[in-house]
Amino acid sequence: LPRQFSANQPQTIRLYPLSNYTFGTKENQPEEDPSVLARLKRLEEHYEIHGMRRTCEGILVCHEHNHPHILMLQIANAFFKLPGDYLQAEDDEVEGFKLRLNERLAPVGNQFSGDGVNDEWQIGDTLAQWWRPNFETFMYPFLPAHVTRPKECKKLYFIQLPKSSTYLHAMHPGVFEEDGLMFTTEVLSVPKNMKLLAVPLFELYDNTARYGPQLSAIPHLLSRYNFEFV
Amino acid sequence: LPRQFSANQPQTIRLYPLSNYTFGTKENQPEEDPSVLARLKRLEEHYEIHGMRRTCEGILVCHEHNHPHILMLQIANAFFKLPGDYLQAEDDEVEGFKLRLNERLAPVGNQFSGDGVNDEWQIGDTLAQWWRPNFETFMYPFLPAHVTRPKECKKLYFIQLPKSSTYLHAMHPGVFEEDGLMFTTEVLSVPKNMKLLAVPLFELYDNTARYGPQLSAIPHLLSRYNFEFV
Ligand SMILES: [Zn+2]
Ligand SMILES: [Zn+2]
Ligand SMILES: [Zn+2]
Ligand SMILES: [Zn+2]
Repeated sequence: LPRQFSANQPQTIRLYPLSNYTFGTKENQPEEDPSVLARLKRLEEHYEIHGMRRTCEGILVCHEHNHPHILMLQIANAFFKLPGDYLQAEDDEVEGFKLRLNERLAPVGNQFSGDGVNDEWQIGDTLAQWWRPNFETFMYPFLPAHVTRPKECKKLYFIQLPKSSTYLHAMHPGVFEEDGLMFTTEVLSVPKNMKLLAVPLFELYDNTARYGPQLSAIPHLLSRYNFEFV
Repeated sequence: LPRQFSANQPQTIRLYPLSNYTFGTKENQPEEDPSVLARLKRLEEHYEIHGMRRTCEGILVCHEHNHPHILMLQIANAFFKLPGDYLQAEDDEVEGFKLRLNERLAPVGNQFSGDGVNDEWQIGDTLAQWWRPNFETFMYPFLPAHVTRPKECKKLYFIQLPKSSTYLHAMHPGVFEEDGLMFTTEVLSVPKNMKLLAVPLFELYDNTARYGPQLSAIPHLLSRYNFEFV
């Protein structure tokens, strides 16, 4: 029998098939800034008032034929981004992040919009931090030497997707019976100007040209986990 | 006051300056295999008898001017590698790994060679797993789809370097007094055919050309930690 090889690792993570989820649409969510320059300008204004910008993004993982896939938004058939956004200066980190995820992905006037529904997002381990040392576009996965006042820190968190039917059940206790499963539940709702794509790890890996330095590093960030595909 | 931004992260890790450590030398440790082909051939033989090869490497971290540096071995002024090696088929993962680290880096006939000294290596979190699907050179930071019998798994672990004097003290209780510190203690001993280098994260980052896909990904793997430089 081969010896164990799982010491010092996080708990094995259970992934559900993409087909467990259905996706609705909702109104357009246009970019806040018309250009990269405008975005950096706004960052500068934010920094002068509130200090370092805190940005949170989620790595939502499911599987297809037993290979992990990451849910990503594609905007205007062009660039890709993870769900998430910068936090409001006054917001708590995790609660503020859940609000941002809901704005982006929760169905309108649906289960996500009531009180207490924030608990539905399972915000897991921090997987990475990306630092912006200056009011410029490049970010690094470390704080560069001698940089003491970074302008933005972007954190990426593991988010385990729920098994959809159980999910709905947990949100409406008493409404659905254990065995009265809702098969194709609209769990996530995507703004009409975006597409939600499930991108396999092997597509992201070593593909900085298409996905940029942050997204193409996701396979590295997940490589300490073992997955169980159900 | 800016709001907290450290949720869901591992404990902050304390790094000591490189100058806390001194490095001795010991006898040459020639490569076991004369060529890549020979190495793959031996892997195949191992696989037929024992199944998947388990390889363990350590990411030893210290700092210079408050920027993390990784200790790496350079062989014949050419390629770089992390300390570590494959495990003997019968060995326990963590104990077997400590043996391999001692072979490579512990001073000869010194504190590392006695009984119970294995406890000195602080084997921390798994940072990555690299999989070799075939008896070929390429490895991936995930198990490729439809690969059920990988030939090798290489795990990378965080290893926090001790603050050297405390270290020695812990190994020889009663021999050194708390305040009789050994300043420049020869903690690590490097085979004569290798050099031990402290490579900063910014040098590794985005530098696959020089360091290869595994070493250049280390900045990503460490980016979820916060460090304290003492
Ligand atoms: Zn397939
Ligand atoms: Zn029920
Ligand atoms: Zn410096
Ligand atoms: Zn003492």
